[in-house]
Amino acid sequence: MAQHGTQAHSHLYGVILAGGSGTRFWPLSRERFPKQLLRIIGEETLIQQTVRRLLRSMPPRRIMMVTNEVQAESIKLQLTAWKEELADNYILEPEGRNTAPAIGLAAIRLVRQDPEAIMVVLPADHVIARPAQFQQAIRVGEKLAQEGYLVTFGIRPTRPETGYGYIQPNRRAGLGGKQKPLGYRVAQFIEKPDLPTAQQYVQSGRFFWNSGIFLWKASSLLEELAQQQPRLFRGLKQIDGLIQAGSSISQLVKPYRRLESISVDHGVMEHSARAAVVPVDFGWSDVGSWGSLEEVAKKNSSGNVTNGNVVDLGSRNSVLFADQRLVATIGLTDMVVVDTPDATLVCPKVLAQDVKKVVGILKKRRAPERLEHRTIFRPWGSYTVLEEGTGYKVKRVTVVPGRRLSLQLHHQRSEHWVVIAGRARVTRGEEVYELQAGDSTGIPKQTPHRLQNPGKVLLEIIEVQNGAYLGEDDIVRLQDDFGREPKTDVSNDNLKRRT
Amino acid sequence: MAQHGTQAHSHLYGVILAGGSGTRFWPLSRERFPKQLLRIIGEETLIQQTVRRLLRSMPPRRIMMVTNEVQAESIKLQLTAWKEELADNYILEPEGRNTAPAIGLAAIRLVRQDPEAIMVVLPADHVIARPAQFQQAIRVGEKLAQEGYLVTFGIRPTRPETGYGYIQPNRRAGLGGKQKPLGYRVAQFIEKPDLPTAQQYVQSGRFFWNSGIFLWKASSLLEELAQQQPRLFRGLKQIDGLIQAGSSISQLVKPYRRLESISVDHGVMEHSARAAVVPVDFGWSDVGSWGSLEEVAKKNSSGNVTNGNVVDLGSRNSVLFADQRLVATIGLTDMVVVDTPDATLVCPKVLAQDVKKVVGILKKRRAPERLEHRTIFRPWGSYTVLEEGTGYKVKRVTVVPGRRLSLQLHHQRSEHWVVIAGRARVTRGEEVYELQAGDSTGIPKQTPHRLQNPGKVLLEIIEVQNGAYLGEDDIVRLQDDFGREPKTDVSNDNLKRRT
Repeated sequence: MAQHGTQAHSHLYGVILAGGSGTRFWPLSRERFPKQLLRIIGEETLIQQTVRRLLRSMPPRRIMMVTNEVQAESIKLQLTAWKEELADNYILEPEGRNTAPAIGLAAIRLVRQDPEAIMVVLPADHVIARPAQFQQAIRVGEKLAQEGYLVTFGIRPTRPETGYGYIQPNRRAGLGGKQKPLGYRVAQFIEKPDLPTAQQYVQSGRFFWNSGIFLWKASSLLEELAQQQPRLFRGLKQIDGLIQAGSSISQLVKPYRRLESISVDHGVMEHSARAAVVPVDFGWSDVGSWGSLEEVAKKNSSGNVTNGNVVDLGSRNSVLFADQRLVATIGLTDMVVVDTPDATLVCPKVLAQDVKKVVGILKKRRAPERLEHRTIFRPWGSYTVLEEGTGYKVKRVTVVPGRRLSLQLHHQRSEHWVVIAGRARVTRGEEVYELQAGDSTGIPKQTPHRLQNPGKVLLEIIEVQNGAYLGEDDIVRLQDDFGREPKTDVSNDNLKRRT
Repeated sequence: MAQHGTQAHSHLYGVILAGGSGTRFWPLSRERFPKQLLRIIGEETLIQQTVRRLLRSMPPRRIMMVTNEVQAESIKLQLTAWKEELADNYILEPEGRNTAPAIGLAAIRLVRQDPEAIMVVLPADHVIARPAQFQQAIRVGEKLAQEGYLVTFGIRPTRPETGYGYIQPNRRAGLGGKQKPLGYRVAQFIEKPDLPTAQQYVQSGRFFWNSGIFLWKASSLLEELAQQQPRLFRGLKQIDGLIQAGSSISQLVKPYRRLESISVDHGVMEHSARAAVVPVDFGWSDVGSWGSLEEVAKKNSSGNVTNGNVVDLGSRNSVLFADQRLVATIGLTDMVVVDTPDATLVCPKVLAQDVKKVVGILKKRRAPERLEHRTIFRPWGSYTVLEEGTGYKVKRVTVVPGRRLSLQLHHQRSEHWVVIAGRARVTRGEEVYELQAGDSTGIPKQTPHRLQNPGKVLLEIIEVQNGAYLGEDDIVRLQDDFGREPKTDVSNDNLKRRT
């Protein structure tokens, strides 16, 4: 923590955009478990790495997260190391409206907190190989931001990528720096170009990739927003007022839906006279698809990126991602194979972007495999659906030492619990009793009950549910340690969660 | 059954070679669940189709099965329609020693039963598209067999396959038939040729594939065997004597292991003056690998053979075999993807033969995925392992109406049962009681217990086992309806089965 001690009195803030849709890394990512939550490279998940990276430049209480309610729960579970400091730093959008509204809302809040606030805006799910150089780039950007520039970081392109935006700097308009300019005014922003154009850009050496990482004074951004997107700006002001007045998220849905869905690149940067680009080289990758994983992940001598229980015979340059289940591959070249407990993807690397289309099909079919994993994390532990069938569901439930689930009852299902590890304290109606590995108990429907781990090791139980209806929304919460509402959950889907 | 009525007084017998190793269709086939047990094409499994095919020419009591003890149990479960008629028709080899010993043993037994016996020998796991023509071919072969010929069926080759044996007929030595010969003497048998040779054979139009289906008088075969393989013949005579005298399978292991492991093609046919070939065209395929499935299975308009829960975008000429789990494929060409509850295979069609090497690796690692499926069928029903972990195992157990498991006890594990469908009669120590869906019970270790389905619908329970040791061999069987030995099972592996 010493590293940001010197910056404690600066006006630098981090704004992490953490509202991914979980389509591009399906089936490892899901709608409710997007890429930022994945441990794709290294020991930490991408959002943990993103926070860690910002901590080189600022204390944790200066880091804000813009996300939605469902994902916030998962993010909090991953950021427990900074739980207290981040507690008030979540801005929850009722739905995603692209980056301009998310960033605008954060800027309004920051200016109120600190009129001099300078904000680094960055996605939660990018990889940056050299965090020290990232920290250095922030220092450079901060200088230009203080002069009122809207700074974006430009990456030297290494291939004619048609999925990115490009930036052309005005080389005659160098900014800051005495010998060598720190950055340049932007000549133009270019939306995703076609392949010949992209090839020309790469060859010319005169264009940068737009990294989607920005740095500016919150007040500068708001000035531009007010001028270029006055309707959006007014809408955001109104929403900020509602939040200030204590409106619930469901009350924000309507005004939020009226906001224009627009990116900050398109809505602000493209037409701003203050846009600047700082060339950087901190090993950036947006890891935009399974096909691009090789940019950042460790490859073996055959060029394969391999994970989990894979038995391979002679594959080359492929992404072979398994988990516990066995995946056998023979003689694959430039392929992607991703296996998860409930779904498997197989495609050539060059078509990995099309996984979005698969998720689209699954969404139409209301297939559960696009929404959530079989294992769901909760503040008290986790549960894994082992099997579901007509009239029954089998789960393995884990409870962290000292934690307990809500005191709850179900109208339509009975439950049986068999302890397989640890110690359980069970509340059933008026009774409270303890169980150990090998013990079991039954919870009739309509009976208030609670599962608690009074021990020092993880409690694990097998839960067998019986009943005509087994949706997660058949729950009446009578008391909860985690502030979850004492009512039936309403979700936007027939797949209910919450336990 | 009317169709074989006219042959009831013939001397025709069927000998099905049913001892596959389960490697080539892994992961759908397993060491203990080989290809013959799979429903690869059509409504019935390959061995069911093989029996059905023979029934056009003979009654069920004339069909013998040469297999091993483990597979016999699964085969019997698939052939329940002819349970009584086939009851005494299983010849159990203690281990596979190629086809000559298996066929020789069957021939010795048949000659004792019926000195005039004519045997059709055929593998259990081939596909024959036109069974009426197969029946006709048997009639033709039978005529030549009666004249003392050792008949093999020759298939007109459609591609330069290097995995088959070839037969060159002696076109000048036509056999039977007044206008057109029924068959030919064999000029030569050729073992698997190299590609240029195979190409030449196909182009010349003068060679047949060796189908591995034979037809001969059992006595003719034994005469040739005695002459060409006298040691093997003596060994088989000795083993037959031991079986006659009531020796157990374990007592046959040693003498069996002394037998030469040799094919009937190589050991008898190649050097026999009586070898004949009958050209046939009954739509034969040995379905030797996933790559060859397309020869027999139905393809969709993109040329894909698809099964189960597959979401595909634009794949062509591929085999996409899923089950319950979701498999998403994008833009594959000439690929094989096979998904099962515990293992997935991905490879190009042309390398599908190499799955044998994968199974070899799994065998070395003692990986359970090469041995058995997660669902195991038993005379009383089935069980599926849902999850295993330290100190616990979760199974879904089904019991067929009217059946019951053995009365048994376990030394090292307790069990909990939750009924999810149907009705269970539970014996626990001295108690007998009934449970319905939603009820549960616990069986302490060392306690004799039994699970029975007294109802008219399938009984399904979730069983949670707890204990330090959870091997299937921790079972003491006190009484069993299916004649299984009342002792701890000894298997050739640390993966124990039996329940």
